[in-house]
Amino acid sequence: MARTGDLSPAEFRQASRRIADWVAGYREGVEAFPVLARVSPGDTAALLPHSPPERPEPLEAILADLDRIILPGLTHWNHPGFLAYFSSSSSAAGILAEFVIAALGVNAMLWRTSPAATELEQRMIAWLRELVGLPEAFEGILLDTASTSSFTALLAAREAAGLGARERGLAGRPEVPPLALYVSEQAHSSLEKAAMAAGLGRGSLRKIATDDRYAMDAEALRRQLSADADSGMRPVMVCATIGTTSSNAIDPVGRIADICERAGVWLHVDAAYAGPAALLPELRGHFEGWERADSIVINPHKWMATPMDCSALLYRDRPAFRASLALTPEYLSSDEQGALDLMDIGLPLGRRFRGLKLWFLFRQMGAEGLRAMLRRHLGLATGFAERIGQNERFELVAPVPFSTVCFRARMPGGAGMEDGGLADEWNRELLTRVNRRGPVFLSHTVLGGRYTLRLAVGSVHTASRNVDEAYRLLCEEHDAMAAALDVGGEMSA
Amino acid sequence: MARTGDLSPAEFRQASRRIADWVAGYREGVEAFPVLARVSPGDTAALLPHSPPERPEPLEAILADLDRIILPGLTHWNHPGFLAYFSSSSSAAGILAEFVIAALGVNAMLWRTSPAATELEQRMIAWLRELVGLPEAFEGILLDTASTSSFTALLAAREAAGLGARERGLAGRPEVPPLALYVSEQAHSSLEKAAMAAGLGRGSLRKIATDDRYAMDAEALRRQLSADADSGMRPVMVCATIGTTSSNAIDPVGRIADICERAGVWLHVDAAYAGPAALLPELRGHFEGWERADSIVINPHKWMATPMDCSALLYRDRPAFRASLALTPEYLSSDEQGALDLMDIGLPLGRRFRGLKLWFLFRQMGAEGLRAMLRRHLGLATGFAERIGQNERFELVAPVPFSTVCFRARMPGGAGMEDGGLADEWNRELLTRVNRRGPVFLSHTVLGGRYTLRLAVGSVHTASRNVDEAYRLLCEEHDAMAAALDVGGEMSA
Repeated sequence: MARTGDLSPAEFRQASRRIADWVAGYREGVEAFPVLARVSPGDTAALLPHSPPERPEPLEAILADLDRIILPGLTHWNHPGFLAYFSSSSSAAGILAEFVIAALGVNAMLWRTSPAATELEQRMIAWLRELVGLPEAFEGILLDTASTSSFTALLAAREAAGLGARERGLAGRPEVPPLALYVSEQAHSSLEKAAMAAGLGRGSLRKIATDDRYAMDAEALRRQLSADADSGMRPVMVCATIGTTSSNAIDPVGRIADICERAGVWLHVDAAYAGPAALLPELRGHFEGWERADSIVINPHKWMATPMDCSALLYRDRPAFRASLALTPEYLSSDEQGALDLMDIGLPLGRRFRGLKLWFLFRQMGAEGLRAMLRRHLGLATGFAERIGQNERFELVAPVPFSTVCFRARMPGGAGMEDGGLADEWNRELLTRVNRRGPVFLSHTVLGGRYTLRLAVGSVHTASRNVDEAYRLLCEEHDAMAAALDVGGEMSA
Repeated sequence: MARTGDLSPAEFRQASRRIADWVAGYREGVEAFPVLARVSPGDTAALLPHSPPERPEPLEAILADLDRIILPGLTHWNHPGFLAYFSSSSSAAGILAEFVIAALGVNAMLWRTSPAATELEQRMIAWLRELVGLPEAFEGILLDTASTSSFTALLAAREAAGLGARERGLAGRPEVPPLALYVSEQAHSSLEKAAMAAGLGRGSLRKIATDDRYAMDAEALRRQLSADADSGMRPVMVCATIGTTSSNAIDPVGRIADICERAGVWLHVDAAYAGPAALLPELRGHFEGWERADSIVINPHKWMATPMDCSALLYRDRPAFRASLALTPEYLSSDEQGALDLMDIGLPLGRRFRGLKLWFLFRQMGAEGLRAMLRRHLGLATGFAERIGQNERFELVAPVPFSTVCFRARMPGGAGMEDGGLADEWNRELLTRVNRRGPVFLSHTVLGGRYTLRLAVGSVHTASRNVDEAYRLLCEEHDAMAAALDVGGEMSA
């Protein structure tokens, strides 16, 4: 191959091995870093040249700066002590697959632009569908994130509502009524953003009240749908969540499906986080009714050890998705019979070969390996929740159906749930102190109006010692804060 | 690190090197494959098990199937003979960076969830901006594709139009007039899809006529805007293209900017393909006026050797983008002062560390290496166009301002541009035959109602011998078809 400004084959082979060793070394040494970056805004930028280099630089110079400038400024998502948000962890299989994906560089926009990428993606969706126990009527695609998957579902639902929005839009049409999207008040913000993007507007969101387990009150949904129908609104979609982001709450999908069927409304299920748990027969009960959904999102890049990005959008009715977005300009036309062009389902034209990641993952870990990982995470979360529940420094504030534990620290002297602002500050300070220690990173949410600590186990790397460490640091810092309170008479800042 | 179902550190180190060698081998041997896959729909699927494996499988088994099942079913985007569509090629730097990105697995949704990823992304946008000669007023982000970038720009433009669409949506509001999006009739279909997705509807597209160079007729745009204003429509955005997909046509951006300024309409510039050519001072003239745009899209994953996906969306007015989509739920709130949370600009919450790809690329190739690549491509395209223009078998059908050549084969006996259907079939057949040969892959478009062959040089791997080969195969197959016509009296099927 002629020199092209790129590395020569021999140089590439050497560089490739060098990076392979760098990656292996990073994985082996990641615990030397604090999970949460200790930099301030602008610190990394200050170390980067203002202008790009004119001349090529050797790989070693780039790797030296990667170590010197970038790594200290990262929050390390693949640190085993990452217990914040929902983790997105990179299994060996996922990392290796991404390397291959980049080398192949195929674009699965049309079947013909990479037949095997299109067909492997479809088969991986089928494998995932089988593993989580959904009926064969479901097919789907792999998109980047749950935000995009739910948005894509909303566009299909919008079109299925019969408004002709694809062709005629929503504006300047007196005959189009106000639209509504129904979610629980605990639903993910991506649904709200989807409504904003799709022209429904944030005001279209009907945030249905939740019960004491933070699950949607199905009866309240029914009443809201009924009231909205009476006032001439058009329901576009109901989104039920299995495993909310704040607390992993489980909306009553079966009852919601009954309501959607009667009202003729599209049912979308957001199982972006918890979906993989349906691999476990003993947890299948949490998913009851989701097989009746029109669309479901499950993110392998969350609780299934797949590197960002990989979000599976499952659906029954391919024509409904094509109806909302399919469009083939002449320069993309092709004439293979029976070929599925995945660009027709979703907004992005270019599509990475994400199916390869799932293929590597399913094969390298096997279904039994994935189930073992999920059970290990569930055990770690449950064990942590038990210790928290038994420790008088803390109190659990939500059930733990999956692997996320929501809890609060009690202030010394018994101030707890009932004591608003001061207790919130106490918890906020505790979280800041624990995260500052380095070995773990937890995040927070607000439940019932109260600042709530949140430990989520979902990384392929997390072991019991990491959760033990989190527990130990929480106790230590709580005690240190209490001691400071005894001495100083007030909270340390 | 405890065993977690994942590979052990020692196993990973070995597997990582194994994959590094596989990737190097793929790059060295890619020319053994036909560029365009020779499979039929279902061929790959037939080789894949219906169900996922229960037990883990060794890496060697996966790689053996990668070679046996996947590679023969791929269209090889990194084959140096890929001359179809717009190429998306994987430079060494880009591949190596993707491997690191997967290993780091960071999510740059919030500044705090990876400060260095956020700040490197911002700096890489600044480097790109400087290289293409745009003023410092532009900042931006890296998204997945131009479809997403243009959609994101449309949402900002929609909000900037003052309709309150973010909050109140577009439906059921008698006070909101019909909306309009202005593009040339040669604009990319992604703009049409963006209008469909954003609730403007396909009917909102005003496809402005083009001149004999396929560039937007600015005067026709002015007239359409004026007529629409008279009829009460609300213009939301004008999209000018520099380097259209069909023929690389260049809309008169300066004149269009004048019109947009007078009308108070958002100007978006689609330079997804041609943008990198602004690195070359001698081509800067093609970009005149783009510095007046409100937003610009440039895809490094097209003509800048970056593996899919990497689309740069540049803009002046960050608040306009935040206004359209920013939304922070409690579980994502953080309190760093002065931190930029990139999730606020764009729909997807999860964000890959795309900045690292550009950093590796800019440093490994240097600005001079990128310019050399671009000039080489321009030279190859110009040289091919010259030979086509001088060969009586063919005729050029559009100017070649960048690296895409649009041409038609003449039927023996002189039937050419003027002869509709039959000449179209002749060209279609020629393209099929050439692509079937294996070493090159060209695509087609329709220009002026005529089926048009299209050769686009944009891959970091493409050398003169690949373009020579395309030329040779075009001549050979044309002659073979002509010979068959002489013998059989009609076209072979």
